[in-house]
Amino acid sequence: MLPNILLINCPDESGLVFKVTGVLYSQYALNIIRNDEFVERNANQFFMRTEFSGAFEREALLKDLYAVLPEGVDLKLTDKRKKDIVLLATKEHHCLGDLLIRHAFNELNANILCVISNYSVLEELTRKFDVPFHHISHIGRSREEHEAAVLQTVQQYNPELVVLAKYMRILSGDFVSHFTNRIVNIHHSFLPAFVGANPYAQAYERGVKIIGATAHFVNSDLDQGPIIAQSVIPIDHTHSAREMAQAGRDVEKNVLAKSLSLVLNEKVFVYRNKTIIF
Amino acid sequence: MLPNILLINCPDESGLVFKVTGVLYSQYALNIIRNDEFVERNANQFFMRTEFSGAFEREALLKDLYAVLPEGVDLKLTDKRKKDIVLLATKEHHCLGDLLIRHAFNELNANILCVISNYSVLEELTRKFDVPFHHISHIGRSREEHEAAVLQTVQQYNPELVVLAKYMRILSGDFVSHFTNRIVNIHHSFLPAFVGANPYAQAYERGVKIIGATAHFVNSDLDQGPIIAQSVIPIDHTHSAREMAQAGRDVEKNVLAKSLSLVLNEKVFVYRNKTIIF
Amino acid sequence: MLPNILLINCPDESGLVFKVTGVLYSQYALNIIRNDEFVERNANQFFMRTEFSGAFEREALLKDLYAVLPEGVDLKLTDKRKKDIVLLATKEHHCLGDLLIRHAFNELNANILCVISNYSVLEELTRKFDVPFHHISHIGRSREEHEAAVLQTVQQYNPELVVLAKYMRILSGDFVSHFTNRIVNIHHSFLPAFVGANPYAQAYERGVKIIGATAHFVNSDLDQGPIIAQSVIPIDHTHSAREMAQAGRDVEKNVLAKSLSLVLNEKVFVYRNKTIIF
Amino acid sequence: MLPNILLINCPDESGLVFKVTGVLYSQYALNIIRNDEFVERNANQFFMRTEFSGAFEREALLKDLYAVLPEGVDLKLTDKRKKDIVLLATKEHHCLGDLLIRHAFNELNANILCVISNYSVLEELTRKFDVPFHHISHIGRSREEHEAAVLQTVQQYNPELVVLAKYMRILSGDFVSHFTNRIVNIHHSFLPAFVGANPYAQAYERGVKIIGATAHFVNSDLDQGPIIAQSVIPIDHTHSAREMAQAGRDVEKNVLAKSLSLVLNEKVFVYRNKTIIF
Repeated sequence: MLPNILLINCPDESGLVFKVTGVLYSQYALNIIRNDEFVERNANQFFMRTEFSGAFEREALLKDLYAVLPEGVDLKLTDKRKKDIVLLATKEHHCLGDLLIRHAFNELNANILCVISNYSVLEELTRKFDVPFHHISHIGRSREEHEAAVLQTVQQYNPELVVLAKYMRILSGDFVSHFTNRIVNIHHSFLPAFVGANPYAQAYERGVKIIGATAHFVNSDLDQGPIIAQSVIPIDHTHSAREMAQAGRDVEKNVLAKSLSLVLNEKVFVYRNKTIIF
Repeated sequence: MLPNILLINCPDESGLVFKVTGVLYSQYALNIIRNDEFVERNANQFFMRTEFSGAFEREALLKDLYAVLPEGVDLKLTDKRKKDIVLLATKEHHCLGDLLIRHAFNELNANILCVISNYSVLEELTRKFDVPFHHISHIGRSREEHEAAVLQTVQQYNPELVVLAKYMRILSGDFVSHFTNRIVNIHHSFLPAFVGANPYAQAYERGVKIIGATAHFVNSDLDQGPIIAQSVIPIDHTHSAREMAQAGRDVEKNVLAKSLSLVLNEKVFVYRNKTIIF
Repeated sequence: MLPNILLINCPDESGLVFKVTGVLYSQYALNIIRNDEFVERNANQFFMRTEFSGAFEREALLKDLYAVLPEGVDLKLTDKRKKDIVLLATKEHHCLGDLLIRHAFNELNANILCVISNYSVLEELTRKFDVPFHHISHIGRSREEHEAAVLQTVQQYNPELVVLAKYMRILSGDFVSHFTNRIVNIHHSFLPAFVGANPYAQAYERGVKIIGATAHFVNSDLDQGPIIAQSVIPIDHTHSAREMAQAGRDVEKNVLAKSLSLVLNEKVFVYRNKTIIF
Repeated sequence: MLPNILLINCPDESGLVFKVTGVLYSQYALNIIRNDEFVERNANQFFMRTEFSGAFEREALLKDLYAVLPEGVDLKLTDKRKKDIVLLATKEHHCLGDLLIRHAFNELNANILCVISNYSVLEELTRKFDVPFHHISHIGRSREEHEAAVLQTVQQYNPELVVLAKYMRILSGDFVSHFTNRIVNIHHSFLPAFVGANPYAQAYERGVKIIGATAHFVNSDLDQGPIIAQSVIPIDHTHSAREMAQAGRDVEKNVLAKSLSLVLNEKVFVYRNKTIIF
């Protein structure tokens, strides 16, 4: 049987670990496999993630846990089963291809229900792996109409997580509000940051020595949601803007895969605009 | 007042977190600031590190903790005060200089009691920072006599930790046995490993693309003790063996400083031949 | 038209750059796009790689270049066209899948002629990408018979490069001698190195903090050929041996792709047991 | 004798390498030790750095080189002797201390003529290494008066390079104009970038997973000059803002030292707002 996972996020107070482990151990005789805690000192917020095994009655356990925890606690009781996810992409294949292969070999703790794209170029790749592909073109549709069509298709699949695997269209606050902390995005990152079009051309002109990628949850403030994972690779003046972009894609692919491994295995808390990752 | 630190290392069994936090929270009303746990699943060994504040009577607390823990537990109750350390060096200044400056600006959680070297070249640097320097030459002494003289000097200072800041002489098992898991060494690391003299010349001939450094505790099996920290930097064919060595020194300095930060802040458990670091 | 690439590897002597650029520029009025040189000072060996465009008669140009270069020069005049390659694999999909996707999207400067494996598990993945797959089982064959069958199949395709994409069988010196500096292998690397079976289990027991990968040319001395690319990722005690292996696979995939990009774009010189990479 | 270094930066045209090596080799019989070239294809700009040895008459050689090079060439003929530098700092010791130790052991290819600071806290450290220290307080002076006093002191020493080793005051365009591409600065870098006060507090609130540092030449657009070197280190939610700042200081120290090694060994070209580094 898969281990259960208990996630607790609440204001800190004395004795929380003692009380929670008391319920699990003394009351229910459950076997704690792994336990991680963290208190964010600035906000005095408590985070605890517990993996445990053993038999229990779900409603009763939740009731007894709520009884020992502060009001307003954010409590989640789940397990390690695969999550249902939907991928959105545009034209670039690097993130999508990497996820499809991991999925095909059972390395992604998820079921990819479908791929949705505003172009058809990734259809052939997707179908190779027997995953449904929905081409929802933005051509001839207003921004609102297109997003509504995408939203409707996503909702038909009822995914637990939406992954933007290089989806190059901006999602509205309304779209995002349907999936709070359940949309993961990947984008390139530079030191310094570049605003405006064609960041790789700007990075080339500026002679940056490092190119990075950031995976984050999407909230209504574009590209400003809680960061899940980041990485960089060194580059130099001999890289053309095109080679910088290729290097950037290689990092993006890796960072997205790492962030999904964390999220899909229930290792990530979101608090305010940051993540706590065990 | 400085927080207290409780370190527990014992065979895993059910309810350990509950029982220990019960003593701290229910019996003694102590305030847990941070708590980290880990169970090594292969060996079924439990590790817990707890920072807490509040007033308590040491002997009573220890007695009550031992009462709820398995026999054979390795229990340490300490705090965040500075530790007394002694540095051994030979001729290279990079690690020693970095530690002396951190020490001078109160960034090393340690008192450097003295520096001991088998050469005198580092005396001037050491004295700049008002740290005692002992030149114990190996010339005209047998290996055993020299080590005995070094050991005697170290023991006069009664340090909690001995740091080999590029001490280029092999310590005997007898020397090491006086300071179990209390000697930290830094050495260069290569992929692949090179045996024999002048590893940088070998690395140059082999065209390695990465140079690294490893900080570890010293046990009787030379350079084979539990690893505390590692890092690498990229190099290429344009680096001469001399430039590779310089790059290697820069990494060694950083890795040693990082490992000492972990050890001096009581974040490192040693179990068998590995470390658990919170 | 694709740029031409001239690769010169010879003992250093005065005026080589002047003489070679003289032939290209003064005699043939060719347009030099990029020029890289390096002199290995220990061996006094000269390396020069020149990209150039323009019309020329191949035999005449080669004759004129040989006339100004020292005897025994290793001279190669090629261009940026795609190379024919054959992949050997066993059971692991991570390197193969990454290369097949890059190939499908025209990002690998190569034609993958076929995949050969001693198991059939990768057949389905390979065929998705319309690449021929040869299952040559080692079962019921002696080591020599099996290698002969593999060699025969490879030779039918007459590849310019053989890529060991996690091929877990040792190649004999005889096999290797057919493809001098034309076989690229990828393997995991550790600090320190581990000999014997199951290195990830050993790495776990030893608590290593870094896992790496090395791509290299294969020579008769197993795993000891010239290194092309290396990289590492940080790990810690919370990684199980299985998670370490997964992290290792992610690095292997990236390092192999990087090394092939260098080799397939004719950026790599081999000299003795090292590489010079422009 | 120290090798000479020739640096050429001019619009690209056919035959430049041939013509320059012709002057050095055919006309002057000089011995080329190392030669690097690069053509920036977007701007069609040619860069060449040549190390050579042998006897020559400086004015004659320059005249003959100018004769074969395009008008408007930026040509520099120098050698590997130590450069005179002045350090500006404020209160933080990490960069200054690292440079003073490297200087004391002859590892910085420079003479540190003096340290200037608007505080006195670094005086004791500086004097340990027998380097003159000028405390020029900004208190009771207008911004213009203070900068004028600093400028006057710097100019008394007539340095070839000014190093801002964590100098926390903004330099005016006028100050910068006295030292075009001769001021090196180090500052922290984040993904994403943070504007406004206390970036480490912001980085903590945002939960960044990487902290970096950038060394760059200073031009009139603050922190926007040509980048020389960059690096990052991984961090996580357990780092307090204070620990992030400490990690940031460790990276800054390393990146500044690396950038100075490049600049002081004449390996860096500046072109528009980027660097070409050999």
